[in-house]
This record gives sequence, C-alpha cells and structure tokens, in this order.
Amino acid sequence: MTPPHTPRRLRYAMVGGGRDAFIGAVHRKAAALDGQIELVAGALSSSPEKARASGRDLFLDDDRNHGSWQELLADELRRAPEDRIDFVSIVTPNHLHYPVAQAFVEAGFHVVCDKPLVHTGAQARDLVAAVKKQGTVFGVTYNYTGYPLVRQMRHMVQSGAVGTVRKVVVEYHQGWLATAVEDSGSKQAAWRVDPALSGAAGAIGDIGSHAENLLSTVTGLEIESLCADLSAMGAGRTLDDDGNMLLRLSGGARGVLIASQICTGSENDLRLRISGTTGSLLWCQENPNQLLHMPVNGAPRTLTRASVGLCESAQRASRLPSGHPEGFIEAFANVYLGVAADIRARLQGVAADPLAADYPDVEDGARGVHFIEKVLESSRSTAKWTNL
Amino acid sequence: MTPPHTPRRLRYAMVGGGRDAFIGAVHRKAAALDGQIELVAGALSSSPEKARASGRDLFLDDDRNHGSWQELLADELRRAPEDRIDFVSIVTPNHLHYPVAQAFVEAGFHVVCDKPLVHTGAQARDLVAAVKKQGTVFGVTYNYTGYPLVRQMRHMVQSGAVGTVRKVVVEYHQGWLATAVEDSGSKQAAWRVDPALSGAAGAIGDIGSHAENLLSTVTGLEIESLCADLSAMGAGRTLDDDGNMLLRLSGGARGVLIASQICTGSENDLRLRISGTTGSLLWCQENPNQLLHMPVNGAPRTLTRASVGLCESAQRASRLPSGHPEGFIEAFANVYLGVAADIRARLQGVAADPLAADYPDVEDGARGVHFIEKVLESSRSTAKWTNL
Amino acid sequence: MTPPHTPRRLRYAMVGGGRDAFIGAVHRKAAALDGQIELVAGALSSSPEKARASGRDLFLDDDRNHGSWQELLADELRRAPEDRIDFVSIVTPNHLHYPVAQAFVEAGFHVVCDKPLVHTGAQARDLVAAVKKQGTVFGVTYNYTGYPLVRQMRHMVQSGAVGTVRKVVVEYHQGWLATAVEDSGSKQAAWRVDPALSGAAGAIGDIGSHAENLLSTVTGLEIESLCADLSAMGAGRTLDDDGNMLLRLSGGARGVLIASQICTGSENDLRLRISGTTGSLLWCQENPNQLLHMPVNGAPRTLTRASVGLCESAQRASRLPSGHPEGFIEAFANVYLGVAADIRARLQGVAADPLAADYPDVEDGARGVHFIEKVLESSRSTAKWTNL
Amino acid sequence: MTPPHTPRRLRYAMVGGGRDAFIGAVHRKAAALDGQIELVAGALSSSPEKARASGRDLFLDDDRNHGSWQELLADELRRAPEDRIDFVSIVTPNHLHYPVAQAFVEAGFHVVCDKPLVHTGAQARDLVAAVKKQGTVFGVTYNYTGYPLVRQMRHMVQSGAVGTVRKVVVEYHQGWLATAVEDSGSKQAAWRVDPALSGAAGAIGDIGSHAENLLSTVTGLEIESLCADLSAMGAGRTLDDDGNMLLRLSGGARGVLIASQICTGSENDLRLRISGTTGSLLWCQENPNQLLHMPVNGAPRTLTRASVGLCESAQRASRLPSGHPEGFIEAFANVYLGVAADIRARLQGVAADPLAADYPDVEDGARGVHFIEKVLESSRSTAKWTNL
Repeated sequence: MTPPHTPRRLRYAMVGGGRDAFIGAVHRKAAALDGQIELVAGALSSSPEKARASGRDLFLDDDRNHGSWQELLADELRRAPEDRIDFVSIVTPNHLHYPVAQAFVEAGFHVVCDKPLVHTGAQARDLVAAVKKQGTVFGVTYNYTGYPLVRQMRHMVQSGAVGTVRKVVVEYHQGWLATAVEDSGSKQAAWRVDPALSGAAGAIGDIGSHAENLLSTVTGLEIESLCADLSAMGAGRTLDDDGNMLLRLSGGARGVLIASQICTGSENDLRLRISGTTGSLLWCQENPNQLLHMPVNGAPRTLTRASVGLCESAQRASRLPSGHPEGFIEAFANVYLGVAADIRARLQGVAADPLAADYPDVEDGARGVHFIEKVLESSRSTAKWTNL
Repeated sequence: MTPPHTPRRLRYAMVGGGRDAFIGAVHRKAAALDGQIELVAGALSSSPEKARASGRDLFLDDDRNHGSWQELLADELRRAPEDRIDFVSIVTPNHLHYPVAQAFVEAGFHVVCDKPLVHTGAQARDLVAAVKKQGTVFGVTYNYTGYPLVRQMRHMVQSGAVGTVRKVVVEYHQGWLATAVEDSGSKQAAWRVDPALSGAAGAIGDIGSHAENLLSTVTGLEIESLCADLSAMGAGRTLDDDGNMLLRLSGGARGVLIASQICTGSENDLRLRISGTTGSLLWCQENPNQLLHMPVNGAPRTLTRASVGLCESAQRASRLPSGHPEGFIEAFANVYLGVAADIRARLQGVAADPLAADYPDVEDGARGVHFIEKVLESSRSTAKWTNL
Repeated sequence: MTPPHTPRRLRYAMVGGGRDAFIGAVHRKAAALDGQIELVAGALSSSPEKARASGRDLFLDDDRNHGSWQELLADELRRAPEDRIDFVSIVTPNHLHYPVAQAFVEAGFHVVCDKPLVHTGAQARDLVAAVKKQGTVFGVTYNYTGYPLVRQMRHMVQSGAVGTVRKVVVEYHQGWLATAVEDSGSKQAAWRVDPALSGAAGAIGDIGSHAENLLSTVTGLEIESLCADLSAMGAGRTLDDDGNMLLRLSGGARGVLIASQICTGSENDLRLRISGTTGSLLWCQENPNQLLHMPVNGAPRTLTRASVGLCESAQRASRLPSGHPEGFIEAFANVYLGVAADIRARLQGVAADPLAADYPDVEDGARGVHFIEKVLESSRSTAKWTNL
Repeated sequence: MTPPHTPRRLRYAMVGGGRDAFIGAVHRKAAALDGQIELVAGALSSSPEKARASGRDLFLDDDRNHGSWQELLADELRRAPEDRIDFVSIVTPNHLHYPVAQAFVEAGFHVVCDKPLVHTGAQARDLVAAVKKQGTVFGVTYNYTGYPLVRQMRHMVQSGAVGTVRKVVVEYHQGWLATAVEDSGSKQAAWRVDPALSGAAGAIGDIGSHAENLLSTVTGLEIESLCADLSAMGAGRTLDDDGNMLLRLSGGARGVLIASQICTGSENDLRLRISGTTGSLLWCQENPNQLLHMPVNGAPRTLTRASVGLCESAQRASRLPSGHPEGFIEAFANVYLGVAADIRARLQGVAADPLAADYPDVEDGARGVHFIEKVLESSRSTAKWTNL
C-alpha cells in the first residue's frame, strides 16, 4: 500500500493518553506508523502536571504541551490557520468524550475519538448534529474494522459472494475480569466496573460495542430487534461483565451476539461467522491474517491477507506481503489513514476517494450508543423482543 | 482399555438399519469394534423383503432374519432364555422409536435406542415408567458423550477443576441443509424436514438435542429456563433448520445454545465452551482428541486423549495411545460398551461398576424430549423466558 | 463405503498379540470393525499358557486356541479346506516375522504381517520369492497409507494435480523415548531398544519405515540415494533414536526424512509435505481428516475426508460423512479390507478390483527393509550419498 | 513496554529504499512506530533523480535529500556534531551493503544494515574489524529474532527450561519462486536469481540466512559441521532455490535446516522446533503470538505473547496485551529499538542495558556470511561433512 504523496504530514493533538494510560499509546503508534501524521500538541491528562510530564516524554514543544484540553483548544484557536493542528485525537476516559468532542467540533476541528462514542443517545444525537452542521471529519476508532480481511469480508458479503445472509454469530470472549482484578490495583479494570466512568454498560459497552460495529459494518444489515440477557458475575459488580443476545436483522437473518469478560483464559477472542445461502465466512481477531471462506460447493478456502484475488479495499489496507503478519496496530493505523485521507481531500478541496477515506464515523459511533441503550433496555425487560 | 473378561460375547438384534440406512451401519461397527458384542438377529427394515435382504448382507442366520420387529420380538420370546438376545438395538426412523422400544421393554428386553428418544413428552414418560417397572437397561445413543475427552471435561467440571461454572456456550453448526437437498433425492434430508417422520422439531431435534445432552452431561447443571428463536430458512420448510437460544442454568450460570443446519460449509461442527471461576474448557467434535484447558493463572494447556494425567473415566474410554486418533465410531462404541457392562453385571448378578456402565439412559432421553418441547414452546412465545 | 456382499465372513488366525501386547489388539479391532472378517483361531503368545489364556479372553474355541504357531499351522493343515482359516495375521515381535511368515506362505496361506517385514534384506528376498511362488496374498500393515486422505494425496500426486514433484518433506516426531523409559518397566520401549528383538535399526525401523512407505506410496517415486545421520541420544542406547536424512528421488525431486523418538512432547506426529510445480499438499496424521492443498494460483483449500470431489479411492476408504472423525483404527481396517478383497477375489476366481484390493504388499515390505539397511549403511559412511 | 525517557528522538538517514523498493518502507515503519526515531536525511536510490523524488515523498528537507550515498556522507561530515544523524540505515540491494557500510563505519557512524550483511567472508571480516576499531554500533536486521516469543524461546532454551538440546529443526518454506516470476516483471524475483546482485547464494542467502540466525540466536549453539544439498529447480536458474541440510551442533545436538522458495503455496512459513531432554518448543513465524511448549511431563502449553510469566526480555519486546496481535513490523521495530538503546547509552556515556540493547550485530552478520559460504562449499562436495 503506497500512501498518496502529500506536501506535508498531517499534524494532530492528543487529549488524554498520558503516562499509565493504555489506549493513547496505541493511537500514537498507529498514527506514527506510516509517516503521514505527526503529533505536535497535547493535553495528555486531566492533571496538569501529569499532562505536561507526559508531553515531555513525547517530545512535545513546551508551548504546545498543555495542562488541560481547554487550554489546548484556546491555544489552537489563537494560532494562524496554517499553524494549527489538522485534527484532535480524543483518548480520555469515556465520560469525557462528549464534552471534549463537542467543543472541538463546534470550534471547527476534525476529530478522532475512541469508542464508545458517548454515554447517552441524547449526547450522540447532539454530536451528530454538530458534526453535520460543521461539515467536519469525525472518526471513531472501532479499530477492528480496519483489519484488511474484515474489509475483504465486508466486500464479499456486500457484493453477494456468500448469497443472502441468513445467520450471523459474533462472539467476543475475554477473561481478564474473571477475577476481582478491580480490587487488586488494575486501573484498566477499576474504571470499567465503575458506572460513573464507564457509563451504564460494562462489557456490552466495552467490547459488545465492537462486536456490534463489526457485525454492522461487515453485513451492512440493521439490527431490527434484540433479546438480551446481561449479568454481573463478579462479586460486588453492578455493571454487566457477561452478555448474550439473540438478534433479528434486516432481510430476515438471525443472529447471536456474545460479549463476555469472565471467560477465564480467553484473551481477546473476537470472532465473526456469517452464513449466506451460497457460502460462509469466519474471521477471528486473534488470527487476523486468515479468513475462512466455505463455499456451498467445494472445499473451504483460507484467504490470507495480501494474497492474490482480494478486493481493492483489502489490498490497500495491507502493508506487507502475505505471510508477514500484520496485527492490531496496523489495523488501528488504517482507521487513522482513512481519517487522514478524508482530511487531506478537504485540504485539497476535492472529494475523498471512498476507498481511501474508509473509517467508522460519527454515525457509526451514534449507532453503537443506541445499540448499548437498547441492550440495557432489553435486559431489564420481560418482553422477548426489543425493537431498535 | 482392556475390556473385562467375560465368558461369551453379548448377542443383540437390530431393528431398522437396513440397506441405504445410515445410522444403523454406524451402530453395527460401534458394536463390533471391541469384539464383545455380536449381531445375531434383526428386523432391518419396515419392508419385509428389504429387511431379509439386508440381514443376508450381514450374515444373519435365516431363522433370525425377520421381516418385521413384531416377528423378531415373537421369535425371541419363543426361544429359551439362554438362546435369546441380550438386547435389542433400535435404529429406525424416529417415529418408530416409541412403539418398538415400548414393546421390547415391556417384554423384559434391554434396549439401545437412537435419539431423539421419542416424539412427545407423554411418550417419554411412558417409556421411563416402563423401564423403571421392568428394571431393564436402556441406553440412548447420545454418542458425543462417549468421547474420552468429553468424559474428561465432565470430570473436570464436576470435580471443580474450573471452579463454579458461570458460562456455557454450545454451538452445533452444520451446513448440509443450506440448499434444498430434500428436493434432490437426499433421503437423509427428506425425512428430517417432514414433520410426520421427524416430529415437531427439525434441527433442534436432530442436533440441538445432542447439544443439550452434551451440555447437561458435562456440566451436571439443569436448564432452568430458556428463550429460543427458531427459524425455517429453507424455502418451503415448516420445521426449523436454524435455532438459537439463551439459557439460564441452575447455580446461576448463563448459556447460549446454537443449532443450525444452514451454516453453509460447516460439516459437523459441535463445540462446547465452559467457563468457570478458575478456568475454561473448550472441546470441538471435529478435533476430538484435544481438549483445551485455560486455567485462570497460567498458560492454556492442550489435553490430549490418553495422555498422562487424565481421569480414569477418560482413560477407560480410550483404546489407543495419544497421537493415534480415535473418532466418531470409537466414541459411539463406548456407549455400547457402557450398556454392555451394565447388562453383564445383571447377568452376573452384581452391581455394575459405574465407571464401566457409563452411558446415556432413558432419563437422559426423556430430558432431551422435554427440552425439545420447551424450545418449541419458547419459540412460539412472546414472553422472554420459558421455564423447564 | 458399502463392502461388497459376500456369502460369509472371512476367517483368520492370529499369531502373537496376546495379553499385554499392544498392536495385536489394534489388528483385531481393525479386522472386526466392518463385520467382514472374524477371528477363529490363534497362537497368541510364545508362552503356551499365556497363549491359551489370551485366546480364551477372545472367545476362541478351545480346539483352535493353540500354544504355539507351529501347532496352529499343523492344525490348520489337518483341517478340511472349507474349514480352514482364510489367512493368518502375524503380530509377533519383529524377530519372529520371518520364520512365521515363511512357514505359512510355504504352506499356501494368505498372510497379513506387521511391519517392518523382517530384519534383513536376504530374508525379505526369500519371502518375496516364496509369495511369488505360491501366488498368495501378503499384506503388510503400513497402516498410515490406509487413511482416506492419504489415498486422496496419492491420487492427486500421481494424476498430476500438483504438477511435477520437486520437494518432499516427511517428518515423524515422537517423544516417548526422550527419557529412559526402557529402564522403568515399559515393555514397548524395552524391545525397541534391544538389537536382538528390534533388529539393527531403532527409530528408523520402527517409525522411519512408516515414513518411507508413506512417501513412496504417495509419490510413486523411488529413493535413488540418501545421506543419513542417525544418533542414539538416550544414555546407554546402541540403536538410533533419532535420524535425519537427505533424499534424492527419481525424477529429480529432493527430499528430507526425519524420524525421531526423542522429540519431547510429540506424540505421533507424522506429516508429509509434497511440493510440485503447480501445487503443494500437506497431511498430518494427528489431524487425519484434513488435507491441505495449496494450488500455485489461488487460495489454499482444506479437503476434508468424505467431502464432495474426492477421488473414488478416498471415498471408498471412508465410512462416515465428513465432519464425523475417523481415525487410526479405521485406516488400519482399510488395510484389512484391501487384503480381504484380494482374498475374496481369489475365492471367487476373479481378478480383484484394484480399488478394493488396495493394500501394502510384500514388495512394499521388502523395499522398506532395503531402505532401512541403506540408511544404516549411509549413517556409517563418510561419503555423502549412498545409492539404493 | 515503556521506552525510556530521552531528551530527543534519534535521527537517522536511509541509504536505498526509494520508490518501488520493498524493504526500505518496512524499515521506515519499524523505525517510526515507537516515536523514538525520526528520518531526517537520505540517499534513497542509486539514481539521483529517483533518490530525490523518493525523499520528497518522505517529507525530507531538500538540503538533506541527497542523490547518492557519497553526498549524504560528505554532507553529514560537514555538519556540526549536534546536527548530525545518529545513525544510517542501509537498505540497498545486497551488493552495495559492503561499500556503504564500510564507508560509514570508517567515518564513525553507527549503522543499521539489512541482511545478508555482505557477499564474502573477506568483506565480513573487514567490516567486523572496522566496527571493532571504531567502537560503533552496528545492527543487522535479522528481524525474526525481534519477535517477543523468539526472545522467550531463547530465554527458555538458554536457561535450561527444556534441558539439554538434542534436536533442532528449522524450516523456511516459501513458494513465490515456484514459477518463473523473474521472467514476468517481478523486480523482487529478478535480483534474487541474479548472481551479480544476489551473490553466490540464492534461497540459502535470502532466507536460509534467517533460518541460521534464528537457530543460532535461540539455541546459542554453534553449527560445527553441515551436509548440504542445494538445487536450482526453476528452469534457467543458476542460484539455488531449494536447500536442505543436516547439521551437527555444539554439545552433540543434531539438526535439520530447510530453506526453499519453490514450495508452492507457502507464504513465509518459517518455523523452529527445538527438543531438549526435558521439553520441546515450537514457534511458527506466521502465527507469531503463540509459542508451543511441550514439557516432558504434562500437557503442552501455549504461551502467548505478553501473557503472565514470560521472561523480562519477551515482555519488553511487547507493546500490547496478549490477544492483540503484534506482527512483523513490531518485531522489526524491536531491532531498531535495540540499536537505539545502544546508541542512547553511548550518547549518555553509560553502559547499555543488555535487555534493552538487544539486537543482532555485525558478528551475527559475519557468522551468517560464513555459514552461506560453507553451505555452498558443502553442496559442491562429495564428502559428507563440511566443518565450519
């Protein structure tokens, strides 16, 4: 994949992601990988001191290394347009996504935001409206859809290579919350089991939302109704750490979605299985360089990343020949490349190439928030089906 | 595994399983494998001519090669006790299980019967009552529980090796009914989609019942309530060919059961995943010589059939050293060995060794019929949960 | 696979394979599986008492349960032809293969013999000559070639489906001799490390001979020269427990053969990889129901046993639909079915159907003995290549 | 893995790697990934025009975007020390490694150089001498040893976790030269089959050298003698495209090394299997986030990247939690991080932390060149063993 020639790297600022944070560092590596984007500013923590120390770790110039996101925003607005950042990347804890994103969008900045987008459907609607009004770029890092073979799977499903979709099973098994790690110093665990920080959803927000996005992106189908059973298995937990649901999809397909963080021993076992009238597809995140295609007639075929015959979208998302494994960061970087392509198109005043500007946007993020709300509603309901 | 020394082979008759039948031949190979059981009589088809021709294929003596099961039963009752069969094996289409089984049980014979046991809960209760009254042996060939590593899994779960069970996912994916094979001459497909022959359940009876039995046998837990969504995806079908359900199990565990015959390309992909508080287990029928154990602390371990450290029950169910694959027939043969052990114990007037007389019995069969009825009820219901 | 209709079961006697023996029980299960062959006589141990006790375990009639193979042979010769066994199965320790086989062949009996056939090339030549002279059937239980997908691999290679063969890698890794198990009571280990019982070859005779047979059978190529490095890794051992060699095959292909019994943790990891100009094939014995086909253009395909499109020879070797695993015993049984088909054809005075009478014969056995001798010669040589 | 805090990014120049080159782009992504190293100068092609166009693609300043490596070197020497590059990265075709590396080393620059290091043993000795004299850092991008689980494997073998090594099998199967791709426009193929550009070795230099490095790095053993059989299978080729060899290693272990580029359908299938007296290890490059450990007693364990219990060296080489796949670029980046740690230590005047400054150096490169020469010698020889 050769990125298009451009006159300069895009410049971005990061909000959140300071020392001890996990996902911020992933965003930075993903953004850095292809040499197309550079980090120039930041407000890396809600603690001003920690923010600045973190910025020095990352070689930020002192005058762009801020103690709060409000200072960062004010500083950027003071600068001449040609000196401003091209976009901001928001990697704070979930509860801050909304105010930070809303402020930057309203100020006219392009945004990359981690998922889940916001805590409530009302916030999501506000944000969608703001993005529409401003006409800005807004990417949501549902990173799993950045994998080349997920794009291949999307292409095959949506071009009819497996016929009409009848059945979808998406499973996301993790085991790291099987024990009470929130009580033994895991910062990552602690905020996820705290409703104030994580929102009303636990596992279903943290990983179920990825499963929903993967299913929706690949199939292009809508979840019309669902029937969910959420549980909090860990002693003392109020948020779900295990969730299972039946799905009814547009076009008559049936589905099952499982998202659990108490499956002892599972690491990050996200898998999507789609069966259509003329074939099935199976992709597993922990082995992302292979896609199993089982045609109705003939032997199962293992499609490998970057091999001959994949669709253009999958080929562009690859950096290396087949047999040279690509992984999580590369998929994540594809989301950044997609956002960057869209921003560059706007800088150049042209329409973006849809194969290049391929990333989950604010509408995907809002749909994910709506999904979470409906899952919670269904789980409390005695009715079988909850419509979306 | 050295079978116990016995003075003679057990003798059995088969009802059904003549020319062109599938499962009868499997039963015969399973019974023959260990040299402990011999086929001496039969009524191998509902067509007298075909029955006798089939019996000649199998080297039956003419005087024990009958044209109907009624003749077979009458002939056996005429014989001196020491010349009679030790048991009958019923491998007819499902709708004949009940009358044949009931007749042989009431005549005092031990029985092996294919699954699903019968069509209705009422029939099942009758049969359980008859078996109790007669005190006879009655095995149901839920053959998957005969696999050595399923027995290992059962041992580990029930001895606490994975702690308290929290989550069970059992999936059974087949693809052979993805197309309208019933219209193109598949006898196996034709009876399965015909309510008169198959009963009120389609996939859920044919393979969902195996999934239920596997789950129940391994965990020892009861399904307290379920929420099912059954579909008939194939054009013109009235019986389900795809089913998905949420489960609530005794002890608070949650579960998901999937049984589908329209998953294009899947062959016989039955898999069981159990997560407890201190570990998880995963077993896949298509790769039956391995069992994955993921302890909460430490690396995942692949337990192989017949390897050092397995439980006595698993070791007894193995015939070959590890690395020498055993398969479907060997697992099936273990059900026959279990029944045979129970019958031999009665012949010898001793209590059966529970490790030897290890097989699914009439109560397992009845529970499976009840399960199917409740799944059908749930699928028609608008209430979320249907209690069992 | 429907075995041909025949008027009666074939009858056989077994020499060796009594209590505590391993491979004899496997032969018996393999012979019994399909209901076509029955054990009627035996001389099951070199100890007369143990022989007779073993025969009683197997329900042999007293008058055909002998204390020595010489008595068995004499008794059979005394019987009327219609009452005789159809063949004898020799499953003694290796050093007895030659005298027993030679005596039965010279008496006109058909034979099944375990491998390696005999200890020396001279013995092998004698035996081949005797079989030719008598015109009898002689099968050697190189059981791995009985697997359906090995037959498919043979078909594909020899029909040109992978083009001209360029490269063959056959690996056979076991680990059970990694420790000094011969000192701690393993009877199986003790005879294998004893030159008096095992012959001049250790691992190369025990498992290397299987690897040679698999390679030769599947490719149809001859090993023209080889360069071997054998080692005795275990303390105090004089026979090889690890062997590696380079091969030059007819037609210009290159090969590598590895046979080791000190690969800690490996169970019975025999695998064959063949690369031709238009494709590669890979089969692994521990996962025998799958064959990987990698065409030069296009995605790798996983061929499964009994799936649509396999060759007639592979289909006939299957008993169950795909997805229902078959294993080691079923493959072993296919060798017996092949021998039985050849014997039946002779009984009926017709030419055997080559697809049915498909089994390794005395020439395969002799080639294996020659191979072992040449490997030992090469291992002692300072010259690079030893011609066969 | 948190990289150490440093006052600034390291700066490097690249020689080679311009438009259409493959490996240069991989180096740049690997160097960029962690935000610790920045590309500031280059001489990216032997064609001055192409060099400068390539540099503009990469956003190089015009005054550091050179038309030849000689200009680059001269320019750097003209600059004040604090403005110079910290190291140069050489990613030219193989035949230019020697002159470029020698010139930069003699001028006192630290170097990263692609493999194989140089074409001849004499060149390698020169370069080793020059590096020793200058005391500079010199990394060779044997990137496969940068994988976290290769480091874990190295740790386990060298700390005795599998006992004394007895057997090593390293296989490197590729298929992309199975057809005459050099005749159909593949630039990557064309130079590899041309002795003028590739040197006297074909596959054995291109990928066999990786296999040697992997084996040597992980085991710490020396190849004492070898017996090689190289072939040129492709029509018209003079360089080997298939190679197989027997190895004798220090300490008595035996080995097999296979390197082939005509294994149709294989992508980049490098695998290393090590058996010691108390366990075996198996790692496969195409599935790099898993390491199979088979202890002599007990079930096989699958160690996953970043999981609890791995050695410090493996943990430091990971960026993400287990279950989040890392791949080829991340492993490559670890070589760069190792070189960078060594350079930083020198800049700070301290001894490098050996766990940080962990990378293949000029001696590894020289050993690889010596290995290639000995393989070629053995392949031409009629003697069995060629000593190293």
